[in-house]
Amino acid sequence: MELKAKLFHIEAGGPYIVLLNRNVARELDLMSGDRARVMAERKYVVAIVDIAHHLKNNEIGVFNEVKEALNLDPGQPVTIIPEEAPKSLGSIKKKLNNQKISKDEIYDIVNDIVDNVLTQSELAYLISAAYIHGFSMSETEYLTRAMAETGDMLKWKRKPVMGKHCIGGVAGNRTTMLIVPIVAAAGLMMPKTSSRSITSPAGTADTMEVLANVSFKSVEEIKNIVNKTNACLVWGGALRLAPADDAIVKVEHSLELDPTPMLLSSIMAKKYVEGVTHLLIDIPVGRFAKSKTHKDYLHLKNHFEELAKRLKMKIRVIKTKGEEPIGNGLGPALEARDVLWVLKGDERAPQDLKNKSLMMAGILLELGGKAKRRRGLKLAKELLESGDALKKMKEIIAAQGGNPKINPDKIKFGPHTFDYVAKKSGKLITLNDDRLSRIARLAGAPKNKGAGIYLYVHKGAKVKKGEKLFTIYAESDWKLNGAVKFLQKWPAVEIK
Amino acid sequence: MELKAKLFHIEAGGPYIVLLNRNVARELDLMSGDRARVMAERKYVVAIVDIAHHLKNNEIGVFNEVKEALNLDPGQPVTIIPEEAPKSLGSIKKKLNNQKISKDEIYDIVNDIVDNVLTQSELAYLISAAYIHGFSMSETEYLTRAMAETGDMLKWKRKPVMGKHCIGGVAGNRTTMLIVPIVAAAGLMMPKTSSRSITSPAGTADTMEVLANVSFKSVEEIKNIVNKTNACLVWGGALRLAPADDAIVKVEHSLELDPTPMLLSSIMAKKYVEGVTHLLIDIPVGRFAKSKTHKDYLHLKNHFEELAKRLKMKIRVIKTKGEEPIGNGLGPALEARDVLWVLKGDERAPQDLKNKSLMMAGILLELGGKAKRRRGLKLAKELLESGDALKKMKEIIAAQGGNPKINPDKIKFGPHTFDYVAKKSGKLITLNDDRLSRIARLAGAPKNKGAGIYLYVHKGAKVKKGEKLFTIYAESDWKLNGAVKFLQKWPAVEIK
Repeated sequence: MELKAKLFHIEAGGPYIVLLNRNVARELDLMSGDRARVMAERKYVVAIVDIAHHLKNNEIGVFNEVKEALNLDPGQPVTIIPEEAPKSLGSIKKKLNNQKISKDEIYDIVNDIVDNVLTQSELAYLISAAYIHGFSMSETEYLTRAMAETGDMLKWKRKPVMGKHCIGGVAGNRTTMLIVPIVAAAGLMMPKTSSRSITSPAGTADTMEVLANVSFKSVEEIKNIVNKTNACLVWGGALRLAPADDAIVKVEHSLELDPTPMLLSSIMAKKYVEGVTHLLIDIPVGRFAKSKTHKDYLHLKNHFEELAKRLKMKIRVIKTKGEEPIGNGLGPALEARDVLWVLKGDERAPQDLKNKSLMMAGILLELGGKAKRRRGLKLAKELLESGDALKKMKEIIAAQGGNPKINPDKIKFGPHTFDYVAKKSGKLITLNDDRLSRIARLAGAPKNKGAGIYLYVHKGAKVKKGEKLFTIYAESDWKLNGAVKFLQKWPAVEIK
Repeated sequence: MELKAKLFHIEAGGPYIVLLNRNVARELDLMSGDRARVMAERKYVVAIVDIAHHLKNNEIGVFNEVKEALNLDPGQPVTIIPEEAPKSLGSIKKKLNNQKISKDEIYDIVNDIVDNVLTQSELAYLISAAYIHGFSMSETEYLTRAMAETGDMLKWKRKPVMGKHCIGGVAGNRTTMLIVPIVAAAGLMMPKTSSRSITSPAGTADTMEVLANVSFKSVEEIKNIVNKTNACLVWGGALRLAPADDAIVKVEHSLELDPTPMLLSSIMAKKYVEGVTHLLIDIPVGRFAKSKTHKDYLHLKNHFEELAKRLKMKIRVIKTKGEEPIGNGLGPALEARDVLWVLKGDERAPQDLKNKSLMMAGILLELGGKAKRRRGLKLAKELLESGDALKKMKEIIAAQGGNPKINPDKIKFGPHTFDYVAKKSGKLITLNDDRLSRIARLAGAPKNKGAGIYLYVHKGAKVKKGEKLFTIYAESDWKLNGAVKFLQKWPAVEIK
């Protein structure tokens, strides 16, 4: 059927979409959600049909993506014919029926996700199947490989390539920015890509961005940094790394789902893409962490080990405490200051952050062959205390276009502040990580770099009535108010 | 945060949607898919946030629905703040976790579906949970009641109110248009709402529309027709009957899912809305029907009986043959002619359609107390052969604004035809219902009323090489070609 293009100057986001009125759709025997081939001159796209009320019987509504793909002018004739549903839908249905699917079927699904062929509801079916039935280890392996291979990949001539990942859920916890310079100072290669935060006050990318540029759009730029310094601390989101993951995360978000096959493939695809050969996985366990129990931890540990074996990576999985924030600062600038204080040996450096980072760096030094068994921690300490790690961090900051001479005490925080004081004397038995994260975000973190919370005490401390427990920083008044309001309704500390 | 409205003159369809650029969304700590409260003067809506690239830092993009709800002018100031996710999402997650949910939780979900609060991916999660875990009978009952009560309902002073439904999947099968006039001719009330076809060549509403108007937009109009004639044969889609069902069906469509709780609630909510007290459910069983096996049939039968009991309806569930099309015509006009031929006692009337309709009408006459046990069929035959059923059908046609004097031999069919002849002599062992439906639809049915297929033979017939087996009718040349092409690739008959 031939129709005239009516252009809507807006991106639909997601699959190609065309709009038809109900009459035209019925004439073509198309229902809302069906696919159609849309042709103009010698080009075509396969688009999802949506029903719109205000179009005429000779019109087809197109958004920017279709307009650009077909190079359409307003009113230009466009031919539309029904198209079969993509094969990947059949494979998704198989997973809903708890049937195994083949390597090819998984690659088909991932390709269709990357090519924006599937709608959000079709992705929700895939995620539901993974959530309820799980995937076999083979399926998870193929999912991981497909996710990695459908995007950019970093390839290195040198081995080993060190990697780490923490299964989120604990605020602060900025170990990566300490581990990477320590490990790189020992001569090991550690090209680290990180995400921005989704629910915590800052991700590694948000925090590193206080000190340097983290958005590099080409693999070449990253390679240059790593070749200079042995390492990098960049935002993965600026590159096309495992692009299917973003589409999946977007659909998981509203129900806060993170089925094991997606969690594993999301993390491991990114490590695979970084070219990692030796990997440390940190699983914080605690009531505010993703893993609530030792059983959750063991479940994930086994899966990570099995998957790493299939991907030919050496792996160490460790369990750490996930009961309260790590470090004193929560929010990009406050966390960046904590990191620099640790590197500089400043007495105000948070010891929990320092100790956890040294322990993890030690394991990586052993894994990478730079230290003998049980000697990694000692070497890590030496590299930190000697200033080698600080020197390495300055090199990385410089290579990423930042100021290597940055003074942690000159970092700017939000000018609007609120001090929270103890309402009674006693022992601090809870620092509610979830609520502190929420407060820091309401105050503006991570978008407003200087927003967040600075903790003066940690769990177990004895506090006196009226003693300052933490300060909230915000860059605007209304955000500070929102944060304080929440805090007043939902206390974040418990004193007994 | 205050932004300026940028209007896009297009309906988004589904939930309210607003567009923000990535920067503004991060500033508000909103992710794509999050909810936000959008306010202008004293009005507000809760909308889903989507990220768009081309908006400015002070702009919010809105579609027609939001524009109209807030009465916005271009550039008008709009305030936006993040909003909590609806509670129903928590209930949907519980169902994914196979936990029971309460009556209130189910009503919340259905209300949110009707109010367009949930996105298609969130509905897909609900459907997945129902598909994999199923619902308890209590949950299915509440789902049914909630679906009925959130739309228009027909209420009748007289009892009994007769109803019937066929679990689709068999082409032709236009029994409703014979059962209703027979049952109503006996003095029973039978207010029947029907759907248009989704996958078959015609639904009852499509076929009845050849003879009369079926789109009535108010409950009052339907009541007038029923008060005049004891019955009606109308399209449910023009009314607001169980409106949540449409939203669910739309999301089920791409994977062709129809989980039992949705199938049951969709059908039973509509019967409940019709005010039905006595119900006959027809479940065709066969390889081209929805129910493939006797076990499938028993599963559904038990569920229907249990649910009817809870809704205080008397029910009879019967198993019929689903092996091949019923009647000779497939497509609205061709099926309408079959129906009229049966009513008029024409010798060309398809006997299978006549016999199935009489059997079912007989059961309803017994259920409704007009015939003693085992006497229903006899009474149905009398009502048909006496012309009473035809007279009743004419009354219904007249009440619905059609021509009661319509001559079945004057009904128009598509002028483009193709005769399919037997390629060899032998016994016809298969008439592939799926493929015939597909061919009839490619030929233009049900949108093009005169399109479809007329069968000269049925399964088991002995045919001779070169004998005409069926004719395809189409209203346009290109649709006939599409149908014939498909037929040549996918033979619809098997001769042995």
